[in-house]
Amino acid sequence: MAPALDPRTGLPVVAMVGGGQLARMTHQAAVALGQSLRVLAATPDESAGLVAADVQIGDHHDLAALQRLADGATVLTFDHEHVPTEHLHALQAAGHRVAPGPDALVHAQDKLTLRQALADAGEPQPAWARAERPEDVAEFAATHGWPVVLKTPRGGYDGKGVFVVSGPDEAAALLDAHGRLLVEERVAMVRELSAQVARSPFGQVAVWPVVETVQRNGVCAEVLAPAPDLPDDLATAAQELAVRIADRLGVVGMLAVELFHTADGVLVNELAMRPHNSGHWTIEGARTSQFEQHLRAVLDYPLGSTAMTAPVVVMANVLGGAAASGDWTGPALDERVHHFMAHWPDVKLHWYGKGQRPGRKLGHVTALGDDLTEVRARAAAAARYLADGVVEPAFAFEKEH
Amino acid sequence: MAPALDPRTGLPVVAMVGGGQLARMTHQAAVALGQSLRVLAATPDESAGLVAADVQIGDHHDLAALQRLADGATVLTFDHEHVPTEHLHALQAAGHRVAPGPDALVHAQDKLTLRQALADAGEPQPAWARAERPEDVAEFAATHGWPVVLKTPRGGYDGKGVFVVSGPDEAAALLDAHGRLLVEERVAMVRELSAQVARSPFGQVAVWPVVETVQRNGVCAEVLAPAPDLPDDLATAAQELAVRIADRLGVVGMLAVELFHTADGVLVNELAMRPHNSGHWTIEGARTSQFEQHLRAVLDYPLGSTAMTAPVVVMANVLGGAAASGDWTGPALDERVHHFMAHWPDVKLHWYGKGQRPGRKLGHVTALGDDLTEVRARAAAAARYLADGVVEPAFAFEKEH
Repeated sequence: MAPALDPRTGLPVVAMVGGGQLARMTHQAAVALGQSLRVLAATPDESAGLVAADVQIGDHHDLAALQRLADGATVLTFDHEHVPTEHLHALQAAGHRVAPGPDALVHAQDKLTLRQALADAGEPQPAWARAERPEDVAEFAATHGWPVVLKTPRGGYDGKGVFVVSGPDEAAALLDAHGRLLVEERVAMVRELSAQVARSPFGQVAVWPVVETVQRNGVCAEVLAPAPDLPDDLATAAQELAVRIADRLGVVGMLAVELFHTADGVLVNELAMRPHNSGHWTIEGARTSQFEQHLRAVLDYPLGSTAMTAPVVVMANVLGGAAASGDWTGPALDERVHHFMAHWPDVKLHWYGKGQRPGRKLGHVTALGDDLTEVRARAAAAARYLADGVVEPAFAFEKEH
Repeated sequence: MAPALDPRTGLPVVAMVGGGQLARMTHQAAVALGQSLRVLAATPDESAGLVAADVQIGDHHDLAALQRLADGATVLTFDHEHVPTEHLHALQAAGHRVAPGPDALVHAQDKLTLRQALADAGEPQPAWARAERPEDVAEFAATHGWPVVLKTPRGGYDGKGVFVVSGPDEAAALLDAHGRLLVEERVAMVRELSAQVARSPFGQVAVWPVVETVQRNGVCAEVLAPAPDLPDDLATAAQELAVRIADRLGVVGMLAVELFHTADGVLVNELAMRPHNSGHWTIEGARTSQFEQHLRAVLDYPLGSTAMTAPVVVMANVLGGAAASGDWTGPALDERVHHFMAHWPDVKLHWYGKGQRPGRKLGHVTALGDDLTEVRARAAAAARYLADGVVEPAFAFEKEH
């Protein structure tokens, strides 16, 4: 079956399940390629639903909605990992292209499946075990020590579904609440890294420089590109690890390999098979963004250059803060955007158009330059001002440019 | 009256008259700012109509359609100059913000009005006169010599409405056909330049480096940024000229000042008060693109940095060529995009999604680097391949990256 093209343009139609900011930014990339992203959003006011021309409203658990989304599309892909595997097999059986395919995607959906696959491949990861009974956890801790980390195999994100557990009673309560869990050693890590790779069905791969991801309260706060002071051999090893995983699992599209950097090297934390928060810096910071690259990869287009456009790039998330709380009396969002632009004329804004709630990822900013300390301070101050309406002292009396 | 904001996001809504590629690329910029461009397109398959979420179909000569477009929008702006002045005055009288305002915009609509305003301001421009009768042209030519250039005051673009005339009979025929014309001396020029400036209602201005625009058959083919070998004093003079014009005419938004570079300096050819083909290079080539800057300016947001992101940036238009003709038997568009990506992984594509017709602006490509000869060759070869399916010999046997 020849791939479906948009008869109006002669170019492909990529359909994305999920209407969040990843779909929103993928639509921006699609526009440059002559395309228009087709989006399945849960509600019309989701981030991508507000800006895309071709939006279907539906539930990603609903096979009929997924079939409507796939009809006439060149390929179906994802802005999240929550589509049931059996639905994806059903779409494939009906002749639709799905990228990444369900047999790859399950490794980003189910942490136990990932751990087993990495063990089979001999790739570096934390010590782990399946825990169905409290005794399983106790036995694991007898070898690896308390505290241990318990994780729900499915559905966790941004620190949700991850529990640091100090003893058997806590473990028993979590097993009661959640059923089967993944238990892992608590890794003594230096920091967290992310290695991103894109892979096409043809088997072409493209890697970006390895970045450091700075987490706060389990949520990504900043991404530093490239990861500061990372030895070349370790950076190369992390990139090669990401490529091996993408190849072995048959990933099509973007793969983010989240890594723990330890005294001995790197260990795989988890995978995302889609554009990922750790790659937002690539919009301005690399010749090809992760969003454009995801489209290229799922369409089996040749991949683009991943060269950086500046020596240092820092992305800072804007998480809903003081200004997103109900009792906020400071400047409203549009006024904060004015002040942001006046103070930081060279920091790039990406605002997702979502309702403001504390802790929610509302947008991000990207700063570029030569000096990590300066670039990072600029990005962080800009993000903080947008979130909390607070101007850092170092910037407060600076003349506006 | 407080400016209207989108109640879903708390951010502005910019409405743009016209659904071409300028609106399409402005929508991309709007998405990053948390906005969604509202577009008035003539038909649903116009370039921006294919990708924007908020599209109204209507005629820009229809005041009721313009009023519907402006209702609930923060500000109304343009992707072309063809809206009747009286309609814009009517919108302003009804309380709508229009940027640029009609009294500024008329200088981009009517070449005779522009020539008079520049004469009043003492700005450099070609010798010119109003021509209503053949004798007016003959008298002008007696002073400035044949051939002269005759231009329709309104409606010309991409070389249309411009006539190089060698004698009085030709002039008489054109006056018969068109009525009143602008007559200008034929300028002995070295090349064409463009100076772009953004201006906000507050009066803030931002200028980009002056660029060289390379025309073929009256249509922009390439833009070289910065203009090669332009002496600093002349570059500064051109930027200051653009700023003076923006100030004097009260421009709000983007202004492109198209210039003739002569042995004596620069002369103003014409103005565009919107994002302009000579600024497409800014998407990747400047910290703030002309599209984002246009939004900032019409919203009275502080303007962004215009710093270049690479020493040399070249934009090449893809004009409908052999591959857009009816008897084309070579690779179809999607296949050409594949080959383009394989050959030029670091050249950025912008495809407008329009129907392919010979001579039509279908897209553009942008290349960045250090060496003008190399960057220009790369951009030109990529654009030519997309248009004509021809691979230049220098690239034909290059190993794919």
